[in-house]
Amino acid sequence: MMGESSNGLASRVGGQIHVIGAGLLGASIGLGLRAHGVDVTLEDASPTTALLAADYGAGRPRTAEDPDPALVVVATPPDVTADVVERALAAFPRSFVTDVASVKLAPFRELQRRGIDLTNYVGSHPMAGRERGGAIMARADLFVARPWIICRDGDTPAAALSLIEAIALELGATPMEMTPEEHDRAVGLVSHVPQAVASLLAGRLLPASEQAIGLAGQGLRDTTRIAASDPELWVQILGANHRPVVEALEALQADLAEFTDALRAPDSPGARRRIADLLAAGVRGVSRIPGKHGSSERFTTVTVLIDDRPGQLAALLTELGELGINMEDLRLEHSPGAQIGFAEIGLLPEVAGRAVADLTERGWRTL
Amino acid sequence: MMGESSNGLASRVGGQIHVIGAGLLGASIGLGLRAHGVDVTLEDASPTTALLAADYGAGRPRTAEDPDPALVVVATPPDVTADVVERALAAFPRSFVTDVASVKLAPFRELQRRGIDLTNYVGSHPMAGRERGGAIMARADLFVARPWIICRDGDTPAAALSLIEAIALELGATPMEMTPEEHDRAVGLVSHVPQAVASLLAGRLLPASEQAIGLAGQGLRDTTRIAASDPELWVQILGANHRPVVEALEALQADLAEFTDALRAPDSPGARRRIADLLAAGVRGVSRIPGKHGSSERFTTVTVLIDDRPGQLAALLTELGELGINMEDLRLEHSPGAQIGFAEIGLLPEVAGRAVADLTERGWRTL
Repeated sequence: MMGESSNGLASRVGGQIHVIGAGLLGASIGLGLRAHGVDVTLEDASPTTALLAADYGAGRPRTAEDPDPALVVVATPPDVTADVVERALAAFPRSFVTDVASVKLAPFRELQRRGIDLTNYVGSHPMAGRERGGAIMARADLFVARPWIICRDGDTPAAALSLIEAIALELGATPMEMTPEEHDRAVGLVSHVPQAVASLLAGRLLPASEQAIGLAGQGLRDTTRIAASDPELWVQILGANHRPVVEALEALQADLAEFTDALRAPDSPGARRRIADLLAAGVRGVSRIPGKHGSSERFTTVTVLIDDRPGQLAALLTELGELGINMEDLRLEHSPGAQIGFAEIGLLPEVAGRAVADLTERGWRTL
Repeated sequence: MMGESSNGLASRVGGQIHVIGAGLLGASIGLGLRAHGVDVTLEDASPTTALLAADYGAGRPRTAEDPDPALVVVATPPDVTADVVERALAAFPRSFVTDVASVKLAPFRELQRRGIDLTNYVGSHPMAGRERGGAIMARADLFVARPWIICRDGDTPAAALSLIEAIALELGATPMEMTPEEHDRAVGLVSHVPQAVASLLAGRLLPASEQAIGLAGQGLRDTTRIAASDPELWVQILGANHRPVVEALEALQADLAEFTDALRAPDSPGARRRIADLLAAGVRGVSRIPGKHGSSERFTTVTVLIDDRPGQLAALLTELGELGINMEDLRLEHSPGAQIGFAEIGLLPEVAGRAVADLTERGWRTL
């Protein structure tokens, strides 16, 4: 997918790319670009971080002899993105400048407010953040198969747009165009609001008894998994995108109040109907989430019991391969105190019946 | 785990077990008991359902010649549990009676209110429900590795308690004793509240644009997965356990209001601190959820890129087996539009470093 010897991108860039901010995203972009033969220079507010990223092969420090870069990539935390973009545009007035912050409107508005000429600036957002940050986690293939949103406006030069699209594509991402407003509203809904809700739900587990927590199943684990993310980073992201997130949280608050009110007196007229309507809306909402390959089809889940021994799951998957059954999704489920697990396999509905029959014949226990 | 020829349970029971309600749980209990040589009789409000379950081998219809059963298992929806338990106690005054409803206090209180002698009644709850119900989904091994909560009181005969414990154990479950109040509060927190929150969060996706939904990642998928569950069943469960659930939802509402208020003006004094505190509480809360085998240890996650071809994941797991690396958890992640996926492998921290080195040496790409 990423040819090590491809020089198409380097000649397309036609110069250097300067990365400001050598954390996970900046260093990963540097690694990816260098794998395509692009000359990458690096800087970071922390000289140690810049040196570390350089040691990892993400780029080299800029020198006085270097010409203006073709593109500056600002990969700093959202709180300082506008400042760093402003400085980059001033320092390199003939270079294109992009940023990769996970909020797009706040930095853009701040730059507009300062009266800066933004012709050469194009905001972007590769959706490839992970809980663990830092140059030490950087990977050239971090962006493979991820959306990379690009926020151009009418003044964006075609050359800037196509350069950033080419970089996104060569790093394995899927470029998508959105306005900053569309981007922030979308990530607010699909990323920032679920983060807030998962955190608040997980916070309610603090006063629970050990006995209650001991009954936790896969449902609770799934709904709260992302609550383990870094609070400091999320305070910045949520703060920078607070308007769409607050709007969505207010709508959720209203639904939660309606739901709780109805549940307070479930036998009063209409109460069960209101609860059922809200639950049914959830069924329809979750069915809108695309599965694998952008398809919104739901798979049929077949659950197979597996002993908790190394090799058991591999054996199951090997047999599925032998049977010519393509697995669309896989999830492992464990129960407290048990030496046995469940592999929940997502299959296309038309093969699920045969899969159960074939697996049963081979001695697997399916649910 | 479940010896087909074991007759220990049958002689322990010392008679018949009569199952009322031949849905997923009732039919699965019937199948499991019959695998242990127990004589199981079945009835259901729908004669067709009872016949279907009998055809599946879950038991046989009661006849006029059958003696009183040693135990009656009431496996009906929560709304009618009290009625059916009352009838069973009246019909078989010398038999023990249990139920398997997912709420425990409401049926118990209702039976008390009616002034019924509950000496022979012991409520229980095998936590083995699935989204898909019906006798057709029944499995003798449905209860393997699941908690089976038993709610006795001071009057419960030791013989009744030990009989139900023996059944739970022989069906592969882990019996746990709780009061009805403890049970309902616990499942309210770890199961009913997450269900409500996931449904409400998923419901907020209905008005979203296709473009926004297209950016959905694993975080949104995980937080909303259980929203696909059957609304009709959940209206009953939530209605029957509304007090603990409402109490927990009110606490969540208060947290959500505080969070939203702080986020509305994130630059006002103390606002970011309040947001950070709520997010940090989520980090601590999620760390309380037991992982595999009841352990609350967190695993180190290693992400491996896999092509979307049958056999790729099996090959990875086979190589992990060859390397002697025991996988503690596994999760597949797909991105929209991509022909590539990520296998997130949970490993004990002490083996994670070696696993990355070994896998990389064998040509796998890890993140």
